[in-house]
Amino acid sequence: MAKLFIPGPIDVSKETYCAMSKPMIGHRGKEFEELYASTQPMLQKLGGTTRPFFLSTSSAWGVMEASLKNLCAKKVLNLCCGAFSDKWYSVSKSMGLQADKVQVEWGDAISPEAVRVKLEEGGYDLVTLIHNETSTGVMNDLEGIAKVVKSFPGVLLVVDSVSSFSAVPIEMDKLGIDVLLAGVQKALALPPGLSVFACSQQALERAEAMPNRGYYFDFIEFAKNAQTNNTPSTPAISLIFGLQHILGVIEAEGVQNRYARHKANNAMIHEWGTRHEFKNFAPEGNQSVSLSCFHTPPGFDQAAFIKVLKAKHGFVINGGYGKIKGLTFRISNMGNETRATMQELIDAMDDVLG
Amino acid sequence: MAKLFIPGPIDVSKETYCAMSKPMIGHRGKEFEELYASTQPMLQKLGGTTRPFFLSTSSAWGVMEASLKNLCAKKVLNLCCGAFSDKWYSVSKSMGLQADKVQVEWGDAISPEAVRVKLEEGGYDLVTLIHNETSTGVMNDLEGIAKVVKSFPGVLLVVDSVSSFSAVPIEMDKLGIDVLLAGVQKALALPPGLSVFACSQQALERAEAMPNRGYYFDFIEFAKNAQTNNTPSTPAISLIFGLQHILGVIEAEGVQNRYARHKANNAMIHEWGTRHEFKNFAPEGNQSVSLSCFHTPPGFDQAAFIKVLKAKHGFVINGGYGKIKGLTFRISNMGNETRATMQELIDAMDDVLG
Repeated sequence: MAKLFIPGPIDVSKETYCAMSKPMIGHRGKEFEELYASTQPMLQKLGGTTRPFFLSTSSAWGVMEASLKNLCAKKVLNLCCGAFSDKWYSVSKSMGLQADKVQVEWGDAISPEAVRVKLEEGGYDLVTLIHNETSTGVMNDLEGIAKVVKSFPGVLLVVDSVSSFSAVPIEMDKLGIDVLLAGVQKALALPPGLSVFACSQQALERAEAMPNRGYYFDFIEFAKNAQTNNTPSTPAISLIFGLQHILGVIEAEGVQNRYARHKANNAMIHEWGTRHEFKNFAPEGNQSVSLSCFHTPPGFDQAAFIKVLKAKHGFVINGGYGKIKGLTFRISNMGNETRATMQELIDAMDDVLG
Repeated sequence: MAKLFIPGPIDVSKETYCAMSKPMIGHRGKEFEELYASTQPMLQKLGGTTRPFFLSTSSAWGVMEASLKNLCAKKVLNLCCGAFSDKWYSVSKSMGLQADKVQVEWGDAISPEAVRVKLEEGGYDLVTLIHNETSTGVMNDLEGIAKVVKSFPGVLLVVDSVSSFSAVPIEMDKLGIDVLLAGVQKALALPPGLSVFACSQQALERAEAMPNRGYYFDFIEFAKNAQTNNTPSTPAISLIFGLQHILGVIEAEGVQNRYARHKANNAMIHEWGTRHEFKNFAPEGNQSVSLSCFHTPPGFDQAAFIKVLKAKHGFVINGGYGKIKGLTFRISNMGNETRATMQELIDAMDDVLG
């Protein structure tokens, strides 16, 4: 088995697995309610919100689709800059919604001004943004885009922070984000299978008025159950034990230290890239701090590099995604990595490069 | 911490947790494909089908709702005999579907004849059945009901076998079941967070023609990805490691031995009930073999019984569900329990009863 430095899932610590192996508990009782409640303060701190966090037994796509279902009564604007944000537009279409998009080239960031121009056309009531586009390593200007969206009354903003949550500060309440969602297999370093999300009061009011929301991803059901620290359906209890553990680890580390560590670890990979003349796929100023995406230089046998790195050193990095597969490669620095473990990866990559 | 004998989630073995703690792997590569593929033969054997099993990162409700979304173009008939089957009707309504129901008193079983009478009214294209209604301990006549539904061309049958899958034989192909679904936290004795389901060819053809299916629970996406042993969205990898483990345990035990063991363990609880003059809530001939639901006799302090059993002996049983909370109590014999561990529970219950 090899250690993952791909942009999710990533390496899961022994301590996390140990926490996940606690004796099973029922989900309709005091023990579960206490477990649920224990996750709230740190999730809220990481999300910059006083709103309750809901725990969804699904991958993030479930909540991404649910945001459309619960909140789009008129027309959604999907902000598209890579495989995952582009797909959000496809999902809107697959649901039969009125949808339009701001589309930039993969590797570019969404410009707040382009969002303004599009929203000025009118008719929209929802915008979707992927904060950190995991396929390209682009971190979008969340603050700038949120500011634009908030200047259009009645337009709600859904932000996928799947690969940025707990790696960089996010200010849900301050920025007026209406749905903030994240998967747990990225910077939270848990196995996949659980998503966390919070909704603004305005989002819940919109949802309440939406017909035919169904049950499994009904935001109102989540809100109702959260009042008693519970979930609408049977929750992924072992993953929530894991979540409780990792949030404790973050508390002990301190969130600011955690953000600084992600930044420093990311800088080590950038320096490594510079040293080997690998160019960043994302533009200066919009580079993710949780993962690095590099152009594959002409003549560089990327596949062999990745293969030997795994075979010889037991480290797994990732060879691009979607239509830029092979043209880029990506290295994650999310989760529990330290200066020392990042250095191990760097030494191994240097060894393979010869 | 106490050991669970509630009707799911139930006790998870150390070996299962150990399997779930394998080093994390990426989900878009050979290792995951092999993991996925390894689960197929035994899932198919347990479900009595040659159809591929899909792995859904959700609790069973996700797939129950998805069955409506993917398959109900005209009108659904929900067969209602307890908290969960009644709720399936509510979920149909919450989605804005045309829905009707066959409703029997909680504690009664669905009569195949009642299903025939209702379907003869015409206009239906889907029937939902909960095989083993976990809230009442009623096991419905799957074979009889399937036979009736199959006599109406164009009517598809969805069967929730959440608390019967791997506890009793189920013959999906032989009975003409169109969707067979189960959660893993019942007789499969895994932590919750994963559902497994298989679809008939007819079900997939119906789904393909359905507009606006969305993405997360789109059966066609599941089918497409299953061709390469994968899932549409990021899967609950650690739970699938656990699933692989438990399916190996079942292989080693032998499915017939497993069914016999569940039956024998269940009989021990029934004998215990008879000895103490606790009456079964479910009628003779329709009693679940994976859990037992007893009437609370007049004057019996059920709450105290459950509380002392947990406090003194560390065993958790369950005090009824929904509108029969307090009026019934339930004891599970699902999963890995043996004659010896069931006897421990029985001795403890006898001790509390004095």
